[in-house]
Amino acid sequence: MENAVQQESGTQRYAFLGPVGTFTEAALVQVAPAAQHVPMPDVVTALDAVRRGDAERAVVPIENSVEGGVSATLDALTSGDPLVVVGEALVEISFALVAAPGTRLEDVRHVATHPHAWAQCRGTLARLAPGVVHVPATSTAAGAALLAEHAASGDADELGFEAALVAAHSAAAHGLDVLARGVEDNVGAVTRFVVVARPGTVPPRTGADKTTLLVHLPHNDAGSLLTMLEQFAARGVNLSRIESRPIGDALGRYAFSIDAEGHLADERLAAALTGLHRVCPFVLFLGSYPRADGVATAVAPGTSDDAFTSAQEWVAGLRRGLT
Amino acid sequence: MENAVQQESGTQRYAFLGPVGTFTEAALVQVAPAAQHVPMPDVVTALDAVRRGDAERAVVPIENSVEGGVSATLDALTSGDPLVVVGEALVEISFALVAAPGTRLEDVRHVATHPHAWAQCRGTLARLAPGVVHVPATSTAAGAALLAEHAASGDADELGFEAALVAAHSAAAHGLDVLARGVEDNVGAVTRFVVVARPGTVPPRTGADKTTLLVHLPHNDAGSLLTMLEQFAARGVNLSRIESRPIGDALGRYAFSIDAEGHLADERLAAALTGLHRVCPFVLFLGSYPRADGVATAVAPGTSDDAFTSAQEWVAGLRRGLT
Amino acid sequence: MENAVQQESGTQRYAFLGPVGTFTEAALVQVAPAAQHVPMPDVVTALDAVRRGDAERAVVPIENSVEGGVSATLDALTSGDPLVVVGEALVEISFALVAAPGTRLEDVRHVATHPHAWAQCRGTLARLAPGVVHVPATSTAAGAALLAEHAASGDADELGFEAALVAAHSAAAHGLDVLARGVEDNVGAVTRFVVVARPGTVPPRTGADKTTLLVHLPHNDAGSLLTMLEQFAARGVNLSRIESRPIGDALGRYAFSIDAEGHLADERLAAALTGLHRVCPFVLFLGSYPRADGVATAVAPGTSDDAFTSAQEWVAGLRRGLT
Amino acid sequence: MENAVQQESGTQRYAFLGPVGTFTEAALVQVAPAAQHVPMPDVVTALDAVRRGDAERAVVPIENSVEGGVSATLDALTSGDPLVVVGEALVEISFALVAAPGTRLEDVRHVATHPHAWAQCRGTLARLAPGVVHVPATSTAAGAALLAEHAASGDADELGFEAALVAAHSAAAHGLDVLARGVEDNVGAVTRFVVVARPGTVPPRTGADKTTLLVHLPHNDAGSLLTMLEQFAARGVNLSRIESRPIGDALGRYAFSIDAEGHLADERLAAALTGLHRVCPFVLFLGSYPRADGVATAVAPGTSDDAFTSAQEWVAGLRRGLT
Repeated sequence: MENAVQQESGTQRYAFLGPVGTFTEAALVQVAPAAQHVPMPDVVTALDAVRRGDAERAVVPIENSVEGGVSATLDALTSGDPLVVVGEALVEISFALVAAPGTRLEDVRHVATHPHAWAQCRGTLARLAPGVVHVPATSTAAGAALLAEHAASGDADELGFEAALVAAHSAAAHGLDVLARGVEDNVGAVTRFVVVARPGTVPPRTGADKTTLLVHLPHNDAGSLLTMLEQFAARGVNLSRIESRPIGDALGRYAFSIDAEGHLADERLAAALTGLHRVCPFVLFLGSYPRADGVATAVAPGTSDDAFTSAQEWVAGLRRGLT
Repeated sequence: MENAVQQESGTQRYAFLGPVGTFTEAALVQVAPAAQHVPMPDVVTALDAVRRGDAERAVVPIENSVEGGVSATLDALTSGDPLVVVGEALVEISFALVAAPGTRLEDVRHVATHPHAWAQCRGTLARLAPGVVHVPATSTAAGAALLAEHAASGDADELGFEAALVAAHSAAAHGLDVLARGVEDNVGAVTRFVVVARPGTVPPRTGADKTTLLVHLPHNDAGSLLTMLEQFAARGVNLSRIESRPIGDALGRYAFSIDAEGHLADERLAAALTGLHRVCPFVLFLGSYPRADGVATAVAPGTSDDAFTSAQEWVAGLRRGLT
Repeated sequence: MENAVQQESGTQRYAFLGPVGTFTEAALVQVAPAAQHVPMPDVVTALDAVRRGDAERAVVPIENSVEGGVSATLDALTSGDPLVVVGEALVEISFALVAAPGTRLEDVRHVATHPHAWAQCRGTLARLAPGVVHVPATSTAAGAALLAEHAASGDADELGFEAALVAAHSAAAHGLDVLARGVEDNVGAVTRFVVVARPGTVPPRTGADKTTLLVHLPHNDAGSLLTMLEQFAARGVNLSRIESRPIGDALGRYAFSIDAEGHLADERLAAALTGLHRVCPFVLFLGSYPRADGVATAVAPGTSDDAFTSAQEWVAGLRRGLT
Repeated sequence: MENAVQQESGTQRYAFLGPVGTFTEAALVQVAPAAQHVPMPDVVTALDAVRRGDAERAVVPIENSVEGGVSATLDALTSGDPLVVVGEALVEISFALVAAPGTRLEDVRHVATHPHAWAQCRGTLARLAPGVVHVPATSTAAGAALLAEHAASGDADELGFEAALVAAHSAAAHGLDVLARGVEDNVGAVTRFVVVARPGTVPPRTGADKTTLLVHLPHNDAGSLLTMLEQFAARGVNLSRIESRPIGDALGRYAFSIDAEGHLADERLAAALTGLHRVCPFVLFLGSYPRADGVATAVAPGTSDDAFTSAQEWVAGLRRGLT
């Protein structure tokens, strides 16, 4: 079913956090190279495009992003009409400093880029071009686009910046000179992106899956967080991500955005969900999907599907004595 | 079904830890006054009578007994062919000192009784009859029976004891003089008895029920006992009794005999059993039955049948999206 | 000591996330109205000013901020030379739409502001001025400053935007017209700010305190998070904030930024810290300080200073028997 | 100090659960062969002898005993003037069937012994001598003593039993014929005995120690038992024995008798005791002493003395910043 959908993805529309040239586009190329790529100005707009049916899928950053969107993604996924995650992609983060042809590194005094990209490169840039100043842009690609456009029309001096910081993989695409590559302060950083769809389809279990949830706590003490986490631990379900998000009605009230290892079709994950539904005032299932890294889910003793099934059958057998 | 059985209990045979006159008989009179009462010399024999079909039920002490049988009951219930508990009774424990007619308190130098009865009265007897010595008997009633028999035949002097310590409720039945009543050191003690049957019948849920289990731990550290107990706590199931029993293959290996509040038909208890079956190497279901004290089971938030059912339905609904 | 510092705060330099007119400045005015206020372009620079000794204190947002800086604050506090939190402030978040004198709401097609401010008002603005577009600025105040400057010089048309979204409390200060007030989508939101200093001073216990920590987990399963949280729960210490932060060396490795209720001088908090130090590979103490809301710390049974002291004295007494 | 005491133990009086010939005597011979051995009729009397100063030590069974005394020991240790455990011994349990010289196995119809010994051999005896009946005695040695005495005076026929079941190690000492050896149903069973003294001396830490405690629970739900056990688990302290004992004021109220691995001088054990003192209404320290099996205490990561000391020093260092 999902496979069928993927096979015809050439005709599908994928909204993404654009513009072309961003890291999100790199994720999209991994996931659905032949789909129709529809750039969106922000995460909310990309997700709303799927909600409205203007796109079948959206690709947005969810973890450790350099272009923002992480908090926005967590919040936008969970407010408004329901959406689910159906896949994920990992992209290595590396930056290049680009400028109009002929610009020398020592000419650069102002660099346009997204504030998060700036934050990730400020140390390296301070060494390469001491005294350089940040000019904020809405994306890494936006600054480069302005540079290229003004370089073409010959009025680059009026821009207020001489260079842009862009995703390394897209450096060549802007038609600009690359002054430096690998200018990120932390080499090897990776951003995680999710593929989002309308509810109704859960990709089949592969044995190397993740399940994304949003859970509200019953109250705000350490005990209630323990109670929530014990629902996972009691069934041997590990978490690969947990992030608190303010619920928004008051400081100190938190929801938790969680990625659990395993799939809705796994008995231990179903049992953990059942427990969460009982003890938490609100639980939102946001999808089960294959892990991008393909690492198989660890199964602790007593938590296999067989262990759950045979325990349930044992109790059912005892109960037949009731009649 | 169970009601039908109880209605015709006049024709049923109830084995009990005898002889007549013991506290166990008092429990039996509470539970099944019209049944055929079959005294047995010890707990193992009483339970084996049910196993062999020589009796339909057995009544034996299980908690805080003065006549022994508690450890024996826990162990005998769980070795051999399976048995289940189908009811319980509570009996107040009070003792009387009895002797052949004409005997005065100051004549008493030796007192026959079961060692556990002696242990419960030794302080009071030491004040009533300083220097008095214990002569062990197999039950509280056995010493009194010998006294009565020898008093009748006129050879009481050869017995080696002048008085017996018996269950207060049976003091009059022995045909002996009562030298003192209420000689127990702790006033108000209660012993708990269980009614045991062959498997196949679970009394219906009343809302004020207990469930008896035997559980082995996976290994011997504090963590494994925690893991076992969390199966109850995670579902809001309280315990009214927990006793360790050596497994017998080695010092330091323990089983736990447990009375949990609630009935096999309660969803939270079924969920706790399912969890135990997964994490413990051995779980024995020993019956669900009405509490003698009639106290309704407390239901914590999120642990009602409705809470479990709606959580299971929620997960089932999510899973329908899988197909 | 701290009191002495506060008394002379008129001569102290407070770096803050500027420029003048931001919500952070409103927090600073609460905390130290008479201090020297030193605006900084970003959180890292503000904190580094304290590290270098260019300022005695910094005021930066830490929770639920509309101008960013939250993740940046959590990360910047914990990398580089050590800093501690010595106070906090709460500021209600409300926005105004301002423009050059004479501008009408229907003239507004582009609005300059910080992206996070835009995110918080986009719904209301879409109703007030359908089709309005966002122009990113480095702060709420920066857009307004440009508007005011260009309005004065008569070349506002060249700016590329007709209005700015600013902190409501500073709307009047820009010398611009207020087109609309209270344009935030969520009324009543509050941002929390912290006052940061070099280590060496811990404000005295008031009975209504918080303690901020950064804790790394030993490994990445649900069990290790439970183990960490149990250190608090076992001593009756509640948490008022917990946020996961990627450690940065790999996806899926998390540190937790935590605000615990209570003060380093509280025995239960000291005991929790002792436990954390044993079970976690890294624990960073980031300060104990009075709560802005003045709510007294709840003390559960068995967790008062007396309970800890008497337990320690009991064990010490037992140990004296060792010698 | 303790060593000094042991060196002069030849002059010490050791009360024990007698008479001579019991398994308890075998334990005493292991522990203090040269001491003065003072047999006592029951556990309470043996312990009271130490309380009154009539003996320096008592040796009594505490776990898995065939001659009773286990529950009695647990209860008697903890009521009355304080006592502590200063050592332990393990004795293998094996029985022999003895009779007056000339008696043949087929002549045996009644066997005198302690009821618990009978319980441990009834299966084997039923095969050796079908139809054989139990005659209760106050100890295994008591029945044999009567047999030997009556055999000497030639009136054995009046006794009412033809054989006795005795501790195998003492079979030869009674001057009777051994009809069968190794008649216990479970081969290899071991009983554990403790050496009890007045408080004031704690044997020094050996690295292979046990600590015995009695702990009351704050209330009776599964949660309160968890809370108690977490005090051990949180400090990496394993339990080698846990037994519930009814508190006696009401059915369903339990104390727990616990042997924890480790010594009062171990930091993790001291920390667990501190926690218990805070969360439980009653904690009784009953001694730290070397393990009979010499197995060294396992030390989990983060629970060594160093881990505790360095955590305490870290917190103390933070607190010095307070002044």
